Amino acid sequence: MTNTQASWDILFVHADIATMAQGNYNIIKDGAIGVAKGKIQWIGPFDRLKIDRFHSSPHPIADEIIDCSGKWILPGFVDCHTHLIWAGSRSNEFEMRLSGASYKEIAKQGGGIAATVGAVRRASEDELFSIASRRISHFISRGTTCVEIKSGYGLNLENELKMLAVAERLNQNFPLHVSPTFLGAHALPPEYKGRADDYVDLIINTMLPKVKSQGIACAMDVFCESIAFSTNQTRRLFTAATDIGLPVKLHAEQLSDSGGAALAAQFNALSCDHLEYLSPDGAKAMAHTGVTAVLLPGAFYMLKETRKPPVEDFIRLGVPMALATDLNPGTSPVHDMATVMNMGCVLFGLTCEQALAGATINGAKALGLDRRKGSLETGKDADFVVWDIEAPADLSYQVGITPVNKVVIAGKIAYNV
Amino acid sequence: MTNTQASWDILFVHADIATMAQGNYNIIKDGAIGVAKGKIQWIGPFDRLKIDRFHSSPHPIADEIIDCSGKWILPGFVDCHTHLIWAGSRSNEFEMRLSGASYKEIAKQGGGIAATVGAVRRASEDELFSIASRRISHFISRGTTCVEIKSGYGLNLENELKMLAVAERLNQNFPLHVSPTFLGAHALPPEYKGRADDYVDLIINTMLPKVKSQGIACAMDVFCESIAFSTNQTRRLFTAATDIGLPVKLHAEQLSDSGGAALAAQFNALSCDHLEYLSPDGAKAMAHTGVTAVLLPGAFYMLKETRKPPVEDFIRLGVPMALATDLNPGTSPVHDMATVMNMGCVLFGLTCEQALAGATINGAKALGLDRRKGSLETGKDADFVVWDIEAPADLSYQVGITPVNKVVIAGKIAYNV
Repeated sequence: MTNTQASWDILFVHADIATMAQGNYNIIKDGAIGVAKGKIQWIGPFDRLKIDRFHSSPHPIADEIIDCSGKWILPGFVDCHTHLIWAGSRSNEFEMRLSGASYKEIAKQGGGIAATVGAVRRASEDELFSIASRRISHFISRGTTCVEIKSGYGLNLENELKMLAVAERLNQNFPLHVSPTFLGAHALPPEYKGRADDYVDLIINTMLPKVKSQGIACAMDVFCESIAFSTNQTRRLFTAATDIGLPVKLHAEQLSDSGGAALAAQFNALSCDHLEYLSPDGAKAMAHTGVTAVLLPGAFYMLKETRKPPVEDFIRLGVPMALATDLNPGTSPVHDMATVMNMGCVLFGLTCEQALAGATINGAKALGLDRRKGSLETGKDADFVVWDIEAPADLSYQVGITPVNKVVIAGKIAYNV
Repeated sequence: MTNTQASWDILFVHADIATMAQGNYNIIKDGAIGVAKGKIQWIGPFDRLKIDRFHSSPHPIADEIIDCSGKWILPGFVDCHTHLIWAGSRSNEFEMRLSGASYKEIAKQGGGIAATVGAVRRASEDELFSIASRRISHFISRGTTCVEIKSGYGLNLENELKMLAVAERLNQNFPLHVSPTFLGAHALPPEYKGRADDYVDLIINTMLPKVKSQGIACAMDVFCESIAFSTNQTRRLFTAATDIGLPVKLHAEQLSDSGGAALAAQFNALSCDHLEYLSPDGAKAMAHTGVTAVLLPGAFYMLKETRKPPVEDFIRLGVPMALATDLNPGTSPVHDMATVMNMGCVLFGLTCEQALAGATINGAKALGLDRRKGSLETGKDADFVVWDIEAPADLSYQVGITPVNKVVIAGKIAYNV
């Protein structure tokens, strides 16, 4: 607990803290967090802090002290699955569907993912950056301090690299941490209609090496589904990614059970995401190699799905469950992690504690960042949110209100009410 | 269109406008709204405005002109069903339920509505005002310009009057319009256990006359349900309210079909609310006397209800459908009308246009305020929101983001991003 440095940059005192270490609340009542160089240097009960520091140090304890009386500090949200970069709006399709139009009719009019791919290809990098910047600002204001962003609306070399370049610019220009994922295998581009294997070749031979050499993605994702890529194609893609040292993750078992999760487990995937149709064997395979299950209740809700992911199996088998927005213009226009936590509880039956773990430490696990992020422990990144709530459960319980007081990223106040 | 007065107080130009007159979008592209004395003095296409005003008036056209290029103006939300005044939190009960506790166990520990009644009775008027003020500020920031607030957590003369006094103070201290409703018949207070008729007597003989003489409620509401008050008791209450000229409304058919809506129709009720279990005959009775159906998808969602209100019957019969938050600490902790519109579409199958009508003009109908509020027409209150959206459907489509630019109430800017 002692610290021989001159002082901390900032010290938060008198907050109740849920550290989420080991995925549990681990509550510290009337706690304090001392931060220097963007890291948590000290965390514990305020009482102990007084003994350790106020009385023994010859230096001022911190450059800035923030009183958080009556408030809670929780880890910042780690939103581990988003398609946050896109152009164009698809609210018109939503409106058409509610007015009785079928998916087919909408597709005929150029709707669906093709609409977004077209809009993204037409947009310049600057335009995409500008549009995505607004979403990032909103995310920060709602307590998200780390976000995964997938490519996957370019679907050719130039436009996939453009999307990943935008993700990198967002990372440079905003305080929150961006974890970029290459998702060239999101959908079959129109120009490859009927030639899925050729497109897989293009990804493996042209896109993947470029993505790797530019160092602009932390992982590769594939949409393994009857309407996207087969398990055989997924295996080829995973083999190629693994060969060049890029971790993999998978959109798996969202609409049917294709055995994708078990395959992903063989490749030590960081995560399998969606999982509504996961089989018991798939869950066991995930448990066996420590794959995180990423639950996306926003898409489940918007698509009016009725089959839930096997939450009880995950709990029994010890598979960590993360929650994410899946923010995208087609199936999950969900812009707020607290809303996702609420849906995780109401729609999937998670407890409030599981929902918070899903939105923090297990989200970090799904990105391979849990040594640095997702819980409040000495040595970890000082990414946390001061909340104007009476209990952590308030966040999962209340809908349509996100009572942020301050958002702290790498020890700096990134948003202040 | 001509106007002989010197000038308007404020003029909004170059907005796309959905007036919601007659419950439809009624879109004006590149429109303008001129406001004076809190009322809409002029609304129409900007092109026409130039002819009418810029060239013919000897006076400046308005004290202030606001350019809304690229934005939409829609009527402010009229949230026609809330229980916004309460003390205490019940997120702990939510957490207990998710962890496996039954409603009975929670009730045994003093949970449920009894917990809120206790907390409200213990709170002072000032405390309640302070807590509710935060909720009102949040509502305004999310585009609500008129809100109904029910009593119903006091359940005795002193505390019901206290709640209505808080509603009146909110009306005085905030720009938005508060429409207070007396809901003494919300639940049976613990001290009347087994003596429901005696409590109904108390309401009729003691509370109602006092509420009426103080002029602090615009309507009386009753919770007609197996777990609350019977149709016979409801009839007695409605008769008493009608005798003293207080309009009535009803919590009807939420958990079972008790025939409450048909009864309410006999009393020309302003609205029947919830209605999941409404019978076809009940819907016809509502249509016959022009009762508005208030749909509360937040409670439906939080209670995991599966039976939906008969939306298609309402459409076929021409029953106006309103949407409201039902904000309350037990079954609908929903703080945002846009979220409710989204739920109306996703859970109940409303179109985006029907959802917007439900959140504006039909909400005003449910309060008997549709001559003054709920749509943008000359002579009506200048209550509207400037939205940073590309189409009205965006509001129903996006979740967890409420892109308000400005909230205007009675012609004054009440909230500005």
